[in-house]
Amino acid sequence: MISQQYKAMLGGKSVIRELSEYATARAAEIGAQNVFDYSLGNPSVPVPAAFNEAVIRLIGEKSSMELHGYSPSLGLPGVRRTIADSLNRRFSMNYTMNDIFMTSGAAAALAHAFRLVTAPGDEILTFAPFFPEYHPYVDLTGARLKVVPANTEDFQINFDAFEQLLTPSVHAILVNTPSNPSGVAYSRETLTRLAQVLTKKEEEFGHEIWLISDEPYREIVFDGGDAPYVSHFYPRTISCYSFSKSLSLPGERIGYVAVNPACGVSSMLVTMCGQISRGIGHNCPSSLIQYAAAEVCDMTSDLSVYETNMNLLYDALTALGFEIVRPGGTFYMFPKALEEDAVAFCKKALKYDLVLVPSDSFGVPGYIRIAYCTDTEKVVRSLDAFRRFVEAEYPNR
Amino acid sequence: MISQQYKAMLGGKSVIRELSEYATARAAEIGAQNVFDYSLGNPSVPVPAAFNEAVIRLIGEKSSMELHGYSPSLGLPGVRRTIADSLNRRFSMNYTMNDIFMTSGAAAALAHAFRLVTAPGDEILTFAPFFPEYHPYVDLTGARLKVVPANTEDFQINFDAFEQLLTPSVHAILVNTPSNPSGVAYSRETLTRLAQVLTKKEEEFGHEIWLISDEPYREIVFDGGDAPYVSHFYPRTISCYSFSKSLSLPGERIGYVAVNPACGVSSMLVTMCGQISRGIGHNCPSSLIQYAAAEVCDMTSDLSVYETNMNLLYDALTALGFEIVRPGGTFYMFPKALEEDAVAFCKKALKYDLVLVPSDSFGVPGYIRIAYCTDTEKVVRSLDAFRRFVEAEYPNR
Repeated sequence: MISQQYKAMLGGKSVIRELSEYATARAAEIGAQNVFDYSLGNPSVPVPAAFNEAVIRLIGEKSSMELHGYSPSLGLPGVRRTIADSLNRRFSMNYTMNDIFMTSGAAAALAHAFRLVTAPGDEILTFAPFFPEYHPYVDLTGARLKVVPANTEDFQINFDAFEQLLTPSVHAILVNTPSNPSGVAYSRETLTRLAQVLTKKEEEFGHEIWLISDEPYREIVFDGGDAPYVSHFYPRTISCYSFSKSLSLPGERIGYVAVNPACGVSSMLVTMCGQISRGIGHNCPSSLIQYAAAEVCDMTSDLSVYETNMNLLYDALTALGFEIVRPGGTFYMFPKALEEDAVAFCKKALKYDLVLVPSDSFGVPGYIRIAYCTDTEKVVRSLDAFRRFVEAEYPNR
Repeated sequence: MISQQYKAMLGGKSVIRELSEYATARAAEIGAQNVFDYSLGNPSVPVPAAFNEAVIRLIGEKSSMELHGYSPSLGLPGVRRTIADSLNRRFSMNYTMNDIFMTSGAAAALAHAFRLVTAPGDEILTFAPFFPEYHPYVDLTGARLKVVPANTEDFQINFDAFEQLLTPSVHAILVNTPSNPSGVAYSRETLTRLAQVLTKKEEEFGHEIWLISDEPYREIVFDGGDAPYVSHFYPRTISCYSFSKSLSLPGERIGYVAVNPACGVSSMLVTMCGQISRGIGHNCPSSLIQYAAAEVCDMTSDLSVYETNMNLLYDALTALGFEIVRPGGTFYMFPKALEEDAVAFCKKALKYDLVLVPSDSFGVPGYIRIAYCTDTEKVVRSLDAFRRFVEAEYPNR
């Protein structure tokens, strides 16, 4: 019979998707250049030329069977080695290829990580504001996602709330730094304290607590800023990476799981990922894309536009009276709305062709997410729309 | 805590993998050309040149954001339309793009199909001999795979055994035609009778029974032979396809689910696939690979080598006294071993550097699988090894 579980999900509406559809319809009316669509987190800069060059060169160099043949279920050995070396060089880690499992992007990496260290019924804690897809990602494994209320002061961790929710049912913690939607990167102090709490609670509970680190924005860090490498702070860390944002190729579905060898069982966990794949229909990312991504894994797209956009928006919006925690990276910011009801606020913004996302689904009411992965020229033109919006709708602020 | 379920799976040994590892080790000793490795089902002919040409042209023609950007979760609309059109033209169906869901190969297609129409505890029936990976594929969804004993006469369906196992707990039937490992394609008579049985039992049970058709070998059919399109015979058919074998690119992970619109809910099921993806970390195949595969979706690699090899082996082995149901397609054949214990038989074959797979894991004891996706020159040389093997080990036959 048709699955009632998945059929029931069809009723669910995504605010982000609805807004994006509105933006597309509005663009058909007044031209895309006149709709300031800040709703979607889609990279707006091209892939490095070296990636496409690598694809073309690989087609010329490798035999069809080598290039397009089955990859081993854990990923191509040379690719895993290249990624381990790159991480070691850039983050002073000591991964070997046995600690690396290639995945079809971060979504697949997380799908493996959750199943590695939780069983149905176990709890996974994450911190608001958080990426709303975490709910289906976790809940459909049979584990349960619980959300620690936000520290709205600076969007670091609300440790009091965290310790209250950190019961023996919790087997994994899910962090996302730099964060979608806040743009904030966890500080060394935050990560040190997080590790201390986990170590203490592991002893108290008599079981391991794993740290799952979702880090697709790791390479987008502003101001020469500091986004410490999470795995440094805690041995039982499973890093989930995607090249989607650093190389601007979200459609190519390429990423990996990297398990900190300090946990003592990293190689076993990576081998277990191959077993998990059999149940979820994962069977490596495309081999052509694995080879090409490995060749450029130390590069990024020209990501400077995101910082330029952030500065323009941050300065203009704070001048208009918005409260904003200044992002440390990503292409998001998370200002406080100018009224309590963020949904009402975003509806009013649409009159000025500003497409903003209300924060409710991110686990914090009263804020908005601005995804500024767009041309700087358009960001500049949007500032006037923001000004008109605020002056007309919130004249008494 | 570390998942006990997946940890326990690490103990499991794959006979095929062990044999393949033996073959690799032996090749290091005596040279790969002297090891007749018939263990692995890996395409041995190159991708059509047009595929690589399409990749290179797409890189030149499309913008980075268009080519490498996020694909909608159901697949690229133009690609889905192209595939629907191709299926309609070739198999007289009437799919629209709304009936097509793009997947990372057949493994991902099956992972979605099982979840579409079963819930944990439901039974799925398949027919021996069967692809052993079906066990983890199904069992890890929470459904249970039950295997209908083989009809060893011709490897069509054993309908008596089938009807005995077809209880109200069964919600889906899984077929694979042409079949890995037998190479046999189900006849029109078989598929007609299968549909009749299912229709009768649906009425009797008062619930739907879905037919999941795994058809990666659909395009490898011999003798101008007949491998009828399964979905023609039964409205509630979910076809799971992979381009791995037809285009010789198993590493690129590209395939699709096609739901027969005659079932009346195909568009809903395809939309549900997008929900299932969220839980299993699937997020479309690579967009570059989607575009390129769509451009060549009516082509195949030069698959004639498989038929040449089949004829050589079939003639030589039957002359040596083997009983074989002549394959209708694929690159497998499934002869009866010359002694009851197929494992013992295959061990003896190794002395002649013939790497054959015993049938036990395929659900039928006493047979062997020969995967003849290899160079014809090597097949020819292997015939002498087969002759020496049989004459020395089974002199009295």
